[in-house]
Amino acid sequence: MARALVTLTTDFGIGSPYVAQMKGALLAICRDADIVDVTHAIAPQNIREGAIVLGDVTPRFPPGTLHVVVVDPGVGTSRRLVYAEIVGQRYLSPDNGLLSWLLKHHALGRAFALENRQLWSETVSFTFHGRDVLAPVAAHLCRGVSPDDLGPPIVDLATIRWPEANVHPDRLAGEVLYVDSFGNLITNIDAALLDRLGARSERIVECSGARISGVQATYGLSRTGEVVALVDSQGRLEVAVVNGSASERLEAREGTTVLVY
Amino acid sequence: MARALVTLTTDFGIGSPYVAQMKGALLAICRDADIVDVTHAIAPQNIREGAIVLGDVTPRFPPGTLHVVVVDPGVGTSRRLVYAEIVGQRYLSPDNGLLSWLLKHHALGRAFALENRQLWSETVSFTFHGRDVLAPVAAHLCRGVSPDDLGPPIVDLATIRWPEANVHPDRLAGEVLYVDSFGNLITNIDAALLDRLGARSERIVECSGARISGVQATYGLSRTGEVVALVDSQGRLEVAVVNGSASERLEAREGTTVLVY
Amino acid sequence: MARALVTLTTDFGIGSPYVAQMKGALLAICRDADIVDVTHAIAPQNIREGAIVLGDVTPRFPPGTLHVVVVDPGVGTSRRLVYAEIVGQRYLSPDNGLLSWLLKHHALGRAFALENRQLWSETVSFTFHGRDVLAPVAAHLCRGVSPDDLGPPIVDLATIRWPEANVHPDRLAGEVLYVDSFGNLITNIDAALLDRLGARSERIVECSGARISGVQATYGLSRTGEVVALVDSQGRLEVAVVNGSASERLEAREGTTVLVY
Repeated sequence: MARALVTLTTDFGIGSPYVAQMKGALLAICRDADIVDVTHAIAPQNIREGAIVLGDVTPRFPPGTLHVVVVDPGVGTSRRLVYAEIVGQRYLSPDNGLLSWLLKHHALGRAFALENRQLWSETVSFTFHGRDVLAPVAAHLCRGVSPDDLGPPIVDLATIRWPEANVHPDRLAGEVLYVDSFGNLITNIDAALLDRLGARSERIVECSGARISGVQATYGLSRTGEVVALVDSQGRLEVAVVNGSASERLEAREGTTVLVY
Repeated sequence: MARALVTLTTDFGIGSPYVAQMKGALLAICRDADIVDVTHAIAPQNIREGAIVLGDVTPRFPPGTLHVVVVDPGVGTSRRLVYAEIVGQRYLSPDNGLLSWLLKHHALGRAFALENRQLWSETVSFTFHGRDVLAPVAAHLCRGVSPDDLGPPIVDLATIRWPEANVHPDRLAGEVLYVDSFGNLITNIDAALLDRLGARSERIVECSGARISGVQATYGLSRTGEVVALVDSQGRLEVAVVNGSASERLEAREGTTVLVY
Repeated sequence: MARALVTLTTDFGIGSPYVAQMKGALLAICRDADIVDVTHAIAPQNIREGAIVLGDVTPRFPPGTLHVVVVDPGVGTSRRLVYAEIVGQRYLSPDNGLLSWLLKHHALGRAFALENRQLWSETVSFTFHGRDVLAPVAAHLCRGVSPDDLGPPIVDLATIRWPEANVHPDRLAGEVLYVDSFGNLITNIDAALLDRLGARSERIVECSGARISGVQATYGLSRTGEVVALVDSQGRLEVAVVNGSASERLEAREGTTVLVY
């Protein structure tokens, strides 16, 4: 049988040995899986960042890849854990909005609530469902267990608000979608919108009272401590402090207004 | 033949290309191995942290997994390198106490000193036995070399002191077991002991003159710079500074007393 | 067919999900590849660091391993992307000097410019040729496409200046080869040169006005903030600040003179 392909996305932090606990738990049940790390640097409990990273990265994998996601502020509460098929990929995730950026752009296929405890670890901790539920369930799926054995089918998943930027002829009014683990402010203004206003180098970006002249292509030409606006590789406007935290410097957070004119 | 499974645990630091040197050396001899990183973020030369991470993580892997460990302040001295079987897992490690947390809880199976230089690299550096001895020996084991070809059998391994917390009816007197690479203070007080005293939220934790009110479930609700006490996912009491180093702030280190009442 | 072995070396930064985008793009075309990370912590756009890491690490891999390298300040300009065979290894890289440290020590074998767009992604972004060109080309090579199908043969690659240290009977005059992502200053003075002057502990290292007494074996015995000189595991003299940035402290950069006497 072909080896299964599994990815992991978590907020455990770079270098955390908890990631390896999940890998061990998975491989102990299904030895023939290839495991790829998407990232473990999602800012702690930042569902929005997790959701967008999943949307950016996972559709690039081979169809049928199983993506296991752990950004789980609700661990230990009654939030569900779910299996879902979206855009030809398969996901195991808490049902807390992590899949809602994908679902903003693609239809939900089959989905099931994880309720079949026979596929979980014998002992399930209160705080580490990634290791004790998602990893063993992933392993059973890799070994050929059918998704409809995981629990009852469900037809909708938790969603979160994804605000749209307001578009005016001569300006854009957006907001900070999330703050990443470096303190960069990722906005809901995309490159296509931005370019309607004219040359990027002539734009002014306003955020928390700071006025930034010009949208740059890279961090490359800026000096440590400088506040810059740039378009990231995913085509989103970002406000950053070179080698620093824009969130701390500008006292900006999720929802803070960002203007471009 | 099934592919071999090897894990790596080192103090090389996140992003260090030395890890890839070990992987290259291993794969050059045994191409069909799956290699999983446990962590490379063990604080430099911190044998205690390495020992506890091994104890937390490695027993979760499939039986027979080969765990290669490099936290090696004695590299270049006469300390031995060893192969050991513990709790159904296999280890290659300097004999410096790295396996002693596992051996506190499980019996030592077969063990051998690595002395058969025919299984090492042709040239062995003074400072990088992980690449020049452990990686090639691991590869030969993956290819089916028998452990008793590695060198003479041995019956005991180096141990280090693992202090126990003192338990009183109304208080616990423990100590810092190790300081992790973030400066967090990990103690020898476990959750079961702690809960004998009553509700976690009503406890006082004292360390280096700091008095912390309440043991929290997560970092989540605290502010940057705050000193907090919490129970980590392994069930150990930990003293931390949010986004900072508790070791620096409190001038605390391995062996510093921690009181709970 | 045996699984292909691919390594990745980039300056994307630790924890960057762009690495996983490349892995997804590769695995979507060639599912049966083993992918090993060399490092993603090359300082941004630091071609010299990338070149030296490639030289240190990649020759240790099995012959025929395919090494994909993305340190690419010229992305979006007319710089070529190339395939090259050196020292029995295979490389896919921008033609910007990344392979020139290897070529300082080994002969160039076959090389081709990547021009066959049928092997690229259908849509190629301006800023992410690693994902849109190198990853799919790597996947096609793994599936058996012949290198001479990639584009026209070429016979020379871009080179960069690799300055040699000046050797005098009683002193060495070298320079900083590159500044790594921690701010450490890696010099062109190697251990063999250094040891001609006598005992390392009695040497003086001068850099940007700082005079450092003694070349140490490790960081281990030094205090936070101290400026130290040491020989790294690759046998190169390095000037570092313990838990800090020597580049910032000494205002030193690539090309800064380093004296030893």
